Amino acid sequence: MNYGIVAKILGSILIIDSFLMLPAFLIAAALNENAKTSFLITITVTLILGFFLSKINVANKEIRAKEGLAIVTFGWVAISIIGAFPLFLSGSLPTFADAIFETISGFTTTGASVIRDVEILEKSIQFWRSFTHWIGGMGILVFTVALLPALGMGSFHLFKAESPGPVAGKLAPKIKDTARALYISYISLTLLEIVFLLLGGMSLFDASVYTFGTVGTGGFGVYNSSVSEFNSYIHFVIGIFMVLSGINFSLHFFLYTRRFKDIFYDNELRLYIKFIVGSVLFITLNLFLTKYGNLFVSFRDSFFQVSSIMTTTGYSTADFDLWPTFSKIILFVLMFIGGSAGSTAGGMKVIRVLVLLKLIKREISKIFHPRAYSPVKIGKKAISNDIVARVNSFLALHVIVFIVGTLLISLEGIDLVSSFSSVAATLNNIGPGFGLVGPTKNFADFSIPAKLLFSFLMLLGRLELFTVLALIVPSRWTAES
Amino acid sequence: MNYGIVAKILGSILIIDSFLMLPAFLIAAALNENAKTSFLITITVTLILGFFLSKINVANKEIRAKEGLAIVTFGWVAISIIGAFPLFLSGSLPTFADAIFETISGFTTTGASVIRDVEILEKSIQFWRSFTHWIGGMGILVFTVALLPALGMGSFHLFKAESPGPVAGKLAPKIKDTARALYISYISLTLLEIVFLLLGGMSLFDASVYTFGTVGTGGFGVYNSSVSEFNSYIHFVIGIFMVLSGINFSLHFFLYTRRFKDIFYDNELRLYIKFIVGSVLFITLNLFLTKYGNLFVSFRDSFFQVSSIMTTTGYSTADFDLWPTFSKIILFVLMFIGGSAGSTAGGMKVIRVLVLLKLIKREISKIFHPRAYSPVKIGKKAISNDIVARVNSFLALHVIVFIVGTLLISLEGIDLVSSFSSVAATLNNIGPGFGLVGPTKNFADFSIPAKLLFSFLMLLGRLELFTVLALIVPSRWTAES
Repeated sequence: MNYGIVAKILGSILIIDSFLMLPAFLIAAALNENAKTSFLITITVTLILGFFLSKINVANKEIRAKEGLAIVTFGWVAISIIGAFPLFLSGSLPTFADAIFETISGFTTTGASVIRDVEILEKSIQFWRSFTHWIGGMGILVFTVALLPALGMGSFHLFKAESPGPVAGKLAPKIKDTARALYISYISLTLLEIVFLLLGGMSLFDASVYTFGTVGTGGFGVYNSSVSEFNSYIHFVIGIFMVLSGINFSLHFFLYTRRFKDIFYDNELRLYIKFIVGSVLFITLNLFLTKYGNLFVSFRDSFFQVSSIMTTTGYSTADFDLWPTFSKIILFVLMFIGGSAGSTAGGMKVIRVLVLLKLIKREISKIFHPRAYSPVKIGKKAISNDIVARVNSFLALHVIVFIVGTLLISLEGIDLVSSFSSVAATLNNIGPGFGLVGPTKNFADFSIPAKLLFSFLMLLGRLELFTVLALIVPSRWTAES
Repeated sequence: MNYGIVAKILGSILIIDSFLMLPAFLIAAALNENAKTSFLITITVTLILGFFLSKINVANKEIRAKEGLAIVTFGWVAISIIGAFPLFLSGSLPTFADAIFETISGFTTTGASVIRDVEILEKSIQFWRSFTHWIGGMGILVFTVALLPALGMGSFHLFKAESPGPVAGKLAPKIKDTARALYISYISLTLLEIVFLLLGGMSLFDASVYTFGTVGTGGFGVYNSSVSEFNSYIHFVIGIFMVLSGINFSLHFFLYTRRFKDIFYDNELRLYIKFIVGSVLFITLNLFLTKYGNLFVSFRDSFFQVSSIMTTTGYSTADFDLWPTFSKIILFVLMFIGGSAGSTAGGMKVIRVLVLLKLIKREISKIFHPRAYSPVKIGKKAISNDIVARVNSFLALHVIVFIVGTLLISLEGIDLVSSFSSVAATLNNIGPGFGLVGPTKNFADFSIPAKLLFSFLMLLGRLELFTVLALIVPSRWTAES
C-alpha cells in the first residue's frame, strides 16, 4: 500500500473536517456554552494535523483499489474520533468509548445513541451531533456514487452507465462533476425541508437538526421522545422527506435537468415505492384492526414508521416495539432491505433485492427451458453474470456479518430479539430496534466491548462491507492466484 | 402437461404405498388393536385405486420437467393424504387436517407433531407414524440423487458427475443403478442402528421406531420426552447415527466400494464436520460456563442437540429453549444450513453454503484483481456461473419463503420468536423450534389454517422449493420469452 498518498489525502479531509466544526463552535461561542473551549481545541489541533499531513511529499500519486479503500475507511474513522473530542471534553459523555460510539453513529447516519437524556445537552453539542449526520450523508453520496464506481466496485451504478448526466465515470474530472450534482441536490433538499418544517411551527434550530437527521437518514433528535413531540403535519413532512432521502440522488438531479422519463421508468424507484406502499397498507390495516381502532392514526404512524425504518433513519412517533408481531416482522424485513443505492440510506439497498428477485424469476423459467439464453434484466438492460455474482455475494456477506454480530452480542447475556435487532439496527444504520434497543430505549447499558462492536458494525454497514473487510482479510486471499 | 402419464405413475406409487402400510396392519392385527380395521380399509382402497390408475393407457410416455415435478409433488401429497386415513379413522387425531399435518410431517421427515400425548397411541399407529419417516427418507434420496439430476435440476450433484459409481446420469437405467446403491446404504444404516440400540437395552419396537426417526432425520418418537427417556449411551448412538444420516448417501456407498479417498477429500463432508465440531465446542463451553457446570453433561447435550438440529432430525434430550441466547443462535443458524445434499436431511444444505462462501472469497479477491479470471472452485473443480446462480437463487428463495411464512403465521397473534422459529422448524423439516414450538411443546394449539400452512411449508422445504413453486407460478414466467 502507498501509505504516503493515503496520509496526504487524509490530511485534506482533516482540514475540511475542522471547518465543518466551525458552526457548532460559533453556536457555543454565541451562547457562551461550556463546550466552546472543547470545540476550539479540537478545531485547532485538527487543522494543524491536517495541514502537516497534507504537505507530505509523495512521489507516487497513484491511487489503486487498496489505497482508495484505506482512505475511505480511515477517513471515516478519523473524523469520528476527532468529532468525539468535543463530546468527551465537554463532559457530555462519560467515557471516550461512548463518545466514539455516538460520533460513529452520527457520521454513519445510524442514529443509535448512548445518551439517556439528550434534552440536557448544550445547544452546540446537540447541533454538532445532528450535523455529523448531514456530513456523513454527503460523504456517503460521494463515496457510493462517485468514488466506488471509479474504483471499479460500484456494481449497481453500472446500470446507469449508459445515460448521460451525473453518473460515475472512471476519471477524476467526472468524479468532480458527479459530486457537484450531488451537492446541489443534497443542499436543495435540505433547504426545502427546513422551510416546510418552519411552516409547521418548528423553531429554526429544531427545524435544522431534524432536517440534518432526515436528509442524512440518521435519526438523532433533540427530544427524548424523538418526533412524537410534534404535530401530525410535522410527522408527514419528515415522513415524506425521509422517503425522498432514500431515493437515488441521481434521480433528484434528473428533476433539475427535466429528465422526468428517466425518473418515471427507474426500476429501483418503482420497487422502492412498491415496498413502501405495500408495507404502509399492511401495517395500517394491522394497527387499525388490532390496536388503534382509528384509521387516521393507524395510517399516520404506519407511514412514518415505514419510511423511517426503510430509509434506515430511525425516527419514531410511536413505540413500534409494542405493535403486533405481523407489523414488527414487516419492519424487521425493511430494516435489511434499506433504501435505494446512491441515497443516504443504509441496508442492503433496493437495487440488490431487485436483482435477486429477477434472478429467482429467471431460474424458475429455466426449469422449463434449460437451454434458453436468458440474462437477468433490469428494465431493458441485461445484467452481466459478474454483477449478479457481486450482488449475491454482498447479500450473503451481509447475512453472515449479521449472524456473527448477533452471536457476539448475545454474550452480553441478553434475549434473542434484543440480540438480533440491535445488530440489525446498527449494521443497517437504522438506530432503534426491538426489545432492549426499542424506540423508547437506547444503547447506554451495553458494555464497552459491545459498544465498540456496534461501532464496527455501523462502519461495516455504511461502507458496504467489502470496503472494510478487504482491508482486513488475509493477504493470501487477495494475492494473484 | 401430460396428465395421463402423471396419473399412471401415481398409480404405481399408490400400489407401493399400500404394501408399505402392511407392517403396521400386521402389528395392529397381532395385537388386536382398534386401528386394524382403519389400516385394512385404507390398504384395500389404495390398492384398488392404484391398480386402476396404473392401468391407464397412455400414448405419449414422455416425461418432461413439468410432468416430473408434478409426479413428485402430487405423489408426496397423495401418500400423505392416504397415510392420514389410518390416523384419522382410528380416532388417534381429532380432525382430518391434524392427521394430514402429522403424515406430511412424517413423509417430509420433519417430525413436527400435533399430538399432545404420543404414549397413549396404539402400537400400530406409533409404528406407522415413525415408518412414514423411513419411507420419506428413502423417497427423498431417490428424488434428490436420482430424479432431480435426470430432470436437469440437481445443481449440486454435477460436482460428482465425473466420478463413476452411484451418481446421476440422464437415462432411466442409470437412475435404477443409483437408486439400488441408495437402498443398500439406507437399509444397512438402518439395520446397524437397530443393532446398536438393542445393545443399549432398548426393546426391538423402540429401537425400530427411533431408528426410522434417525435415518430418515425425522424425529417422531414414542415417548413424550423424546430421547431424554434413555441413557447416555443411547444419546450418543442416536447422535452419531443422526450425523451419519446427514451425510450424502453416495459417500456411504463409497465405503462399500472402498473409495476412501473420495470420502476423505469430499469438500461438503469436510465443511459439514467443521460446522458440527465448531458448534458442539462453542455450545459445550457456553453451557458449561453459564448453565450446567458439568463438562460431560454439557458435551453430551451439546453434541446431541447440534447433530439433531443440523441434520434437521429434531430429537431432543434437553429443553434447549432454556439454553443461553448464544447457544440458541447457533442452533437457529444450523436449522437453516441443514445437512448435506443427497442425505435425508432438510435445510438449505451444506454444499450450497459452501458455494456461497467460495463466492464471497472470490469477490473479495476480485476487488484487487478485477480482470483476473477466477471461477468459483469446489476442491479442484470449477463451478459454472449457471450453477452459482442457481444456488444463489435457491438460497434467496428459501429466505423469501421463510419471511412470507413468518408473516402469515404471525397473524395467529403469537410472539416474534415463536413465529419465526415455527416457520424455520417446518420449512427446514426439523420439527421443534423455540418458544411456543420449543422441544417440550408441539403444534397442537395452532388453528387449522396455520396447520395447513405449516404442512405446505414442510412440503416446500422437502421438495427443494422450485419443484413445488414451478407448478404454481404464473405460466407467463415459464413461457419461452
